[in-house]
Amino acid sequence: MNTASAMLLDAVKWNEHGLVPAIAQDATTGEVLMLAYMSREALALTVQTGDAHYWSRSRQALWKKGETSGHIQHVRELRLDCDGDTVLIKVEQVGGVACHTGRRRCFYNRLVDGAWVLTGDTDPVLTSPGKFPTQNDA
Amino acid sequence: MNTASAMLLDAVKWNEHGLVPAIAQDATTGEVLMLAYMSREALALTVQTGDAHYWSRSRQALWKKGETSGHIQHVRELRLDCDGDTVLIKVEQVGGVACHTGRRRCFYNRLVDGAWVLTGDTDPVLTSPGKFPTQNDA
Repeated sequence: MNTASAMLLDAVKWNEHGLVPAIAQDATTGEVLMLAYMSREALALTVQTGDAHYWSRSRQALWKKGETSGHIQHVRELRLDCDGDTVLIKVEQVGGVACHTGRRRCFYNRLVDGAWVLTGDTDPVLTSPGKFPTQNDA
Repeated sequence: MNTASAMLLDAVKWNEHGLVPAIAQDATTGEVLMLAYMSREALALTVQTGDAHYWSRSRQALWKKGETSGHIQHVRELRLDCDGDTVLIKVEQVGGVACHTGRRRCFYNRLVDGAWVLTGDTDPVLTSPGKFPTQNDA
């Protein structure tokens, strides 16, 4: 990919913490995998390297997705919404696991009869959560 | 749908403004339509009525999606992520237009050769933007 220009980065409406929410969507299945936050540097590195980088709010640090787990996200498409305050990334999810719990995606709690139900049948744990940081970095 | 219980609402990790980001995804096509924010009341009303409600940060007011434009979002599925700080809604988008600019979705700016490009060919304006509030309420 290209070097991220100041114009590209300035088009983003960064929030009061200097971050923008980024939705990661599986480029093949269309499944929404996770939502994390990008700093200016994280977006620049994402554009430059072609791999998703985020800002970990819990660790207050730049974070290359999959750096520890190997579950890197190769960016296939980057989009910005109408008012510039949300990024959408279509990714090729290496290992098929985006969530720190070892699941395919983070959205495994579904509302059923008024309660959030863990959808273990459709969202099983595919790899040991022990391989991941214990806390979600998003 | 059901009445939203306190337990359902308490499972959400509300941010410092009492809001949670909610990703609206087209239930049929899988396309990510928009990201907006829900207050506790907005999520409760979404669950109770089956139609998406948000909190407008610009107007600081509860907002039933499509109340003015008719482009209501009927909720087909509600999901919460692993750490409870993002909601995913699969919706049936009435009128096929989610964006206040009159487009199908808000993510019509695509990164091409280092610049955000308005994808008018794949994301045309389908209805007059004049029918919508001039500012995105998200």
